[in-house]
Amino acid sequence: MVPRYTRPAMAAIWAPENRYRIWFEIEALACEAMAGLGEISVEAARTIRERGDAAMAAFSQSDLKRIDQIEAETRHDVIAFLTWLAEKIGPDSRFVHLGMTSSDILDTCLAVQLSQATDLLLTDVNAVLEALRKQAFAHKYTLTIGRSHGIHAEPTSFGLKMAGHYAEFERNRERLLTARTEIATCAISGAVGTFAHLDPRVESYVAEKLKLKPEPVSTQVIPRDRHAAYFCALAVTASSIERLATEVRHLQRSEVREVEEFFHPGQKGSSAMPHKRNPVLSENLTGLARLVRSHVIPALENVALWHERDISHSSVERNICPDGTIGLDFALTRLAGMMDKLVVYPEQMAANIESLGGVVHSGEVLLALARAGVLREDAYKIVQRCAMATWTRLGKPDGRTFRENLAADPEIAGRIAPEVLDAAMDSRSHLRAVDERYRLIFGETGPVVR
Amino acid sequence: MVPRYTRPAMAAIWAPENRYRIWFEIEALACEAMAGLGEISVEAARTIRERGDAAMAAFSQSDLKRIDQIEAETRHDVIAFLTWLAEKIGPDSRFVHLGMTSSDILDTCLAVQLSQATDLLLTDVNAVLEALRKQAFAHKYTLTIGRSHGIHAEPTSFGLKMAGHYAEFERNRERLLTARTEIATCAISGAVGTFAHLDPRVESYVAEKLKLKPEPVSTQVIPRDRHAAYFCALAVTASSIERLATEVRHLQRSEVREVEEFFHPGQKGSSAMPHKRNPVLSENLTGLARLVRSHVIPALENVALWHERDISHSSVERNICPDGTIGLDFALTRLAGMMDKLVVYPEQMAANIESLGGVVHSGEVLLALARAGVLREDAYKIVQRCAMATWTRLGKPDGRTFRENLAADPEIAGRIAPEVLDAAMDSRSHLRAVDERYRLIFGETGPVVR
Amino acid sequence: MVPRYTRPAMAAIWAPENRYRIWFEIEALACEAMAGLGEISVEAARTIRERGDAAMAAFSQSDLKRIDQIEAETRHDVIAFLTWLAEKIGPDSRFVHLGMTSSDILDTCLAVQLSQATDLLLTDVNAVLEALRKQAFAHKYTLTIGRSHGIHAEPTSFGLKMAGHYAEFERNRERLLTARTEIATCAISGAVGTFAHLDPRVESYVAEKLKLKPEPVSTQVIPRDRHAAYFCALAVTASSIERLATEVRHLQRSEVREVEEFFHPGQKGSSAMPHKRNPVLSENLTGLARLVRSHVIPALENVALWHERDISHSSVERNICPDGTIGLDFALTRLAGMMDKLVVYPEQMAANIESLGGVVHSGEVLLALARAGVLREDAYKIVQRCAMATWTRLGKPDGRTFRENLAADPEIAGRIAPEVLDAAMDSRSHLRAVDERYRLIFGETGPVVR
Amino acid sequence: MVPRYTRPAMAAIWAPENRYRIWFEIEALACEAMAGLGEISVEAARTIRERGDAAMAAFSQSDLKRIDQIEAETRHDVIAFLTWLAEKIGPDSRFVHLGMTSSDILDTCLAVQLSQATDLLLTDVNAVLEALRKQAFAHKYTLTIGRSHGIHAEPTSFGLKMAGHYAEFERNRERLLTARTEIATCAISGAVGTFAHLDPRVESYVAEKLKLKPEPVSTQVIPRDRHAAYFCALAVTASSIERLATEVRHLQRSEVREVEEFFHPGQKGSSAMPHKRNPVLSENLTGLARLVRSHVIPALENVALWHERDISHSSVERNICPDGTIGLDFALTRLAGMMDKLVVYPEQMAANIESLGGVVHSGEVLLALARAGVLREDAYKIVQRCAMATWTRLGKPDGRTFRENLAADPEIAGRIAPEVLDAAMDSRSHLRAVDERYRLIFGETGPVVR
Repeated sequence: MVPRYTRPAMAAIWAPENRYRIWFEIEALACEAMAGLGEISVEAARTIRERGDAAMAAFSQSDLKRIDQIEAETRHDVIAFLTWLAEKIGPDSRFVHLGMTSSDILDTCLAVQLSQATDLLLTDVNAVLEALRKQAFAHKYTLTIGRSHGIHAEPTSFGLKMAGHYAEFERNRERLLTARTEIATCAISGAVGTFAHLDPRVESYVAEKLKLKPEPVSTQVIPRDRHAAYFCALAVTASSIERLATEVRHLQRSEVREVEEFFHPGQKGSSAMPHKRNPVLSENLTGLARLVRSHVIPALENVALWHERDISHSSVERNICPDGTIGLDFALTRLAGMMDKLVVYPEQMAANIESLGGVVHSGEVLLALARAGVLREDAYKIVQRCAMATWTRLGKPDGRTFRENLAADPEIAGRIAPEVLDAAMDSRSHLRAVDERYRLIFGETGPVVR
Repeated sequence: MVPRYTRPAMAAIWAPENRYRIWFEIEALACEAMAGLGEISVEAARTIRERGDAAMAAFSQSDLKRIDQIEAETRHDVIAFLTWLAEKIGPDSRFVHLGMTSSDILDTCLAVQLSQATDLLLTDVNAVLEALRKQAFAHKYTLTIGRSHGIHAEPTSFGLKMAGHYAEFERNRERLLTARTEIATCAISGAVGTFAHLDPRVESYVAEKLKLKPEPVSTQVIPRDRHAAYFCALAVTASSIERLATEVRHLQRSEVREVEEFFHPGQKGSSAMPHKRNPVLSENLTGLARLVRSHVIPALENVALWHERDISHSSVERNICPDGTIGLDFALTRLAGMMDKLVVYPEQMAANIESLGGVVHSGEVLLALARAGVLREDAYKIVQRCAMATWTRLGKPDGRTFRENLAADPEIAGRIAPEVLDAAMDSRSHLRAVDERYRLIFGETGPVVR
Repeated sequence: MVPRYTRPAMAAIWAPENRYRIWFEIEALACEAMAGLGEISVEAARTIRERGDAAMAAFSQSDLKRIDQIEAETRHDVIAFLTWLAEKIGPDSRFVHLGMTSSDILDTCLAVQLSQATDLLLTDVNAVLEALRKQAFAHKYTLTIGRSHGIHAEPTSFGLKMAGHYAEFERNRERLLTARTEIATCAISGAVGTFAHLDPRVESYVAEKLKLKPEPVSTQVIPRDRHAAYFCALAVTASSIERLATEVRHLQRSEVREVEEFFHPGQKGSSAMPHKRNPVLSENLTGLARLVRSHVIPALENVALWHERDISHSSVERNICPDGTIGLDFALTRLAGMMDKLVVYPEQMAANIESLGGVVHSGEVLLALARAGVLREDAYKIVQRCAMATWTRLGKPDGRTFRENLAADPEIAGRIAPEVLDAAMDSRSHLRAVDERYRLIFGETGPVVR
Repeated sequence: MVPRYTRPAMAAIWAPENRYRIWFEIEALACEAMAGLGEISVEAARTIRERGDAAMAAFSQSDLKRIDQIEAETRHDVIAFLTWLAEKIGPDSRFVHLGMTSSDILDTCLAVQLSQATDLLLTDVNAVLEALRKQAFAHKYTLTIGRSHGIHAEPTSFGLKMAGHYAEFERNRERLLTARTEIATCAISGAVGTFAHLDPRVESYVAEKLKLKPEPVSTQVIPRDRHAAYFCALAVTASSIERLATEVRHLQRSEVREVEEFFHPGQKGSSAMPHKRNPVLSENLTGLARLVRSHVIPALENVALWHERDISHSSVERNICPDGTIGLDFALTRLAGMMDKLVVYPEQMAANIESLGGVVHSGEVLLALARAGVLREDAYKIVQRCAMATWTRLGKPDGRTFRENLAADPEIAGRIAPEVLDAAMDSRSHLRAVDERYRLIFGETGPVVR
């Protein structure tokens, strides 16, 4: 992921320092476990732990360089690290990595990194939820036009819109939690995963200490259906981001102007056109969603490794693991800020509801005619006729409102009382389920901080 | 593809009758070639051709059933067909398929079917081009607001919009032509493609007669990079459909209302809301684009068959070959009709240009200030100030137009003459390149029917 | 999905008859709920239920035709159905669909159909699990070579291979269960989902009766992140199928021959080459996996519908809902049968382990040298030297086994006792964790039928 | 793309220095064009060119930092560059970028960068072609078994295999050339592409100097169908890489051992198993192919920008443009080296052909029986019987070769002469089309260096 879309906290998870720290932790824990089983001496394990901890605490650029240098010779990243570690630990280093394969630490480390990354993503989602909850309660009864097919349908509440996205991000939180469980497994099982040179209790010990579960059958690698499911969760979350971003982009259109992304004083929308205030954040989120979503295909293609393992997944994961989590972290954070600071224009929303001369109440009138005993098919023709008459003369000197056209229609006149027509024109009836839905979504307590 | 999105002409290409007709043609041509080479008797080849032609001409449902019945026994579609054919031809049928493999006729037949399908798609694209050309010339000088980021930018011509899509579909026509060439190859090369039991001249003969080129190295199958490239061309074309459909959906929004899909008298937009007129065709096209686009991934995954061939591509192609071409054929045809009958509202376009009080001319004013010697940075601040003052009071009692705000600004007053300001407010200056661009796109002759 | 890959039980779920049955059920339940709330008369609800039930029970081809005929006129599938239903129910039909929109029954019906489809898929997965469990226990201690990178690594157990796939399909069962919960929601909320003309208790009632949950915020449609997550679960499961299919394809290679798909007496592998026995089932599964996997992208693209809804998702879902579930149902069933009847050749497995002259035991020898105090780097060189000497003369007259080369190596001789070398050559040590892993995967009870 | 898979030459194309160099070139050329048209003074254009050239020639890290610093303030990369440039040029900088938008230089620059990148990719493909040509001619008549479904089919030539891949990469060369033409267009058309403040001849001039074509309708952006088609070409090429990589992985399997990736003296295949020599390069290529292929979906999704443009494509392209070209450049180069140094084992190929006891000649025997007048169906049974008898006793004490089983079969004995059987067992007959095919692929001249 290019630096422009990278936040330091997530980048740190994928930095070599963090990787080496986890690698060492796995090796040190494995030694402790082996010492506990009497396979190596307790002293050796303690030396490894102490000297290793010290080396990791003092880890600097020169250590990074040294490891890179060894890797340039050996062409093997794990061997390079172990060689560097041996230089720090001394002779007891011969007990490090005993009976293990590179994959044991690579895959277990990836599980830890993805867990850390997911924790950050969950924090991000919480921030999005908070921003959405705030807008939902601020605009619980703010009327706005509901649109199907981009065409005005019937009024709804802007808060309810926000609540819907809130519910969707709640689902994404669940999906990320499930995904976190999926990938949080540990493999210390040796070549082709048979524990031929390792006691399975080493794996159990390391797993418990790292808050992972032992992988039931690791075949030198942790099976990649887990990672595929993980990237699916990222992709669905990214798509939810796109849905909300698309909503904002639509609502900020020049003709709609119901909301605006916050525009900094002094900000320039366009170098050539000083009047511009563009929804660039939500457009950016749309693109980032495409990126994160695209990882799902190579992640799925990674599942069918040959036999006990091949290494085709490696180059894929070296890219999509950081790119996917960094991209989604950036997008969620940007989204949370954008929604928190979103400028909402209730007056414009109200004006837009009325901008079609009241035809958005056609459904209610149709029902009123039905209640008055008019056959549905006939009622439809009458109401459509009045609506189209309104619509086509909109803004014209001879234009009339839907209410006026209805009143003037001979087939309406005798059938619906004027006060019923007035009631049908009242948008507030569309708010009647709001309280009930809010209870369903937010619980009884309402806007409590998580 | 579900029947709802299937046109008969494209479906016929993928019907069993057409497949069997092509299979027979390949076998008959191969026999003619072998007869020409003296490998089988001329009489046998003639008998095969005559009786086979007769059988294909009389082909009926009962033949279909008979072939299905044989396939149910042999579990092999090609053997089933050859057995049926032998029943029709008699003893000379022993010269049919000599030295060939099933793939020889399967892959060569697919090349013929995809060629036929592409010809239909090219006809469809021509219809789209005609509709776009018509709208482009009808609205060559129709002013409309250009939008970047969904925000009003500067005026442009609606015809130029159409011309841009025209140019894009011209490119898609080229891509489909290239794709047609890609897949139009013939393989009659026997097991693993070595011609061990076949003369390569049989392949040349069949290829020439079927207007295909011999595949340089068919390894029992025609290499699948060709088909992958083919589905890429469909996917790009589908994405262009989506772009145009998205434009129409945007322009038909209730707040924009610059164009409308044709609405039949008596049509119902919604059962519950009689006022609705929805852009359902362009929304449908958006979905179809997603479908056609999705085939590109399995088509790419089909490339890496194992060794000389495996059969994993088969189940994929049995679905995406008909689905992709049928879906795109339907979408292109629907698009052509939709664009041809598109209802355009130039008055609304003009009204929308002015709806922001003239701020869309801010770029021209900025340049005028620059020409008057004001530093770019200062000029920007002045114009932005006037634009925002206009924008934020839009439609308010104390609202003023951009022109009025500019005139009232002390830093403008002495620097730009009123007539220069007037000129800057004139949208027609944005049409000045239209003629030149039309010549570039449509050639000198203008709207001539292809 | 083409008929070739369609099983009747899954096809029936997507047949019009089933859809109409569910549509009626939703309408009838909604009427019952409204009767309970006093909004319509109990008699009307009863009449609707009774006459509707009778009509659905007697539903025939002529009803289908009648509905199609009405749809051809109205161009609206739901209106067509309601019109047909009205013909069956009589005047009380005016209480049907009151205050609802088409989406209410379309989306709730889709939830029911996807639930039904998932139940079938879960049954299929159970069959796969049973077949894998059977093979796992039949070959719990059958030694076979483990391969990394396609290269012999160390021995493992064929049963453990099967157990690994078993564990993976257990995960897929969980994923499908989660996916089923994701999509099992009900929306009876009217235009743009505000319940303006409907009591939310109608929704609760219908939901409960259909074993669905009320959708917290349906905006006329059920949000499509649910369906995207659903197709992700199908895609991951399909990828697991591909992994197992790839394993079988590899093991059946002519040079490997450790397993074979069951070959029917009288079956023909190839029309041209009578000696062929091809793994066509697993190749077919590979292709089907590509197809099912490809649906994940359009499903994700469906999430970002515009505002309260647009209809772009519809054409996508009309295809991928049946295609995805039918394709996966067929693939899982085929896989279950294939694994159940898989022919396993333990002797060939044993022979393959030894086919490299014993070099597959190099890791154990390396550890033995390390235990004997040889520096890891030196030990590596010695063992690699002996392994390469074995490998490069394999099958040559002067070829020697790895054991022989080791014994002859001067640096080994004094350091490792012959009986230690013998022990290192014993593949059975690679089985030592099998019991423990089986307990982890299958529980204590072992091969109990689910 | 992570550094591990990045070559300096391709990285340099995407480095800021190259981007700024191209940006300046576009601005300088535009000034020259405007000077030619009399819109700005010739002196100003000359000053801009000279001072700018000098600044670019002296461009250093401190310039980079200065631009970053300005961007941090203005949050706009193009404005940051122009401000820096103004500092270098002085007052005449007010004529730079006159009437243009940021997109004019961004999109034109991208066209130049993608052209440069494609030139490098074409060089890479040539290297792949050379390596394949070398192997094709070195092994023109090297017999190897052809495999369908992973099962031995009939012999073929290893050179012909290579020639097939050669032909495929020739096609990819054509696709990349077409893709290069697709994206090599220039847009200097101002806000929403109307040339309102710019003469179209400026665009023509810049285009010609940069060896680009003017974009017929740029709507502030160059239409993204071009870029989508570009990424499709990369994706197809990547899939061809995967096909060849898969072939090598298969041929290096322990049981097959027909080829090997070059193994450096002193190289370690596995830290735990000294005997390992793994096809890690081809596995790596498989993964890289997945990555490059995955870009095709977001590139296609980028096509449907809103109206004249939105900026959702930008974040996508900032990643996939460098990642796609860097990844493919690395993969092609790695592939060329791998194929050039590939170790081929003709003896093992010969041994493998015979390893099934000769049953791979079953097709020829079938034809011989047919020629002898045996009905096809009967002949099939006889040959299959002999083949299966051979196959099932392979390597057993009582095992017999296919030739022996045929000779012993009573139904063969009287019908086929022993010398005909002998001839049928001769693999060399499968080479008879090799010369003809080589002429088709390589032309008459044979192995001439491109």
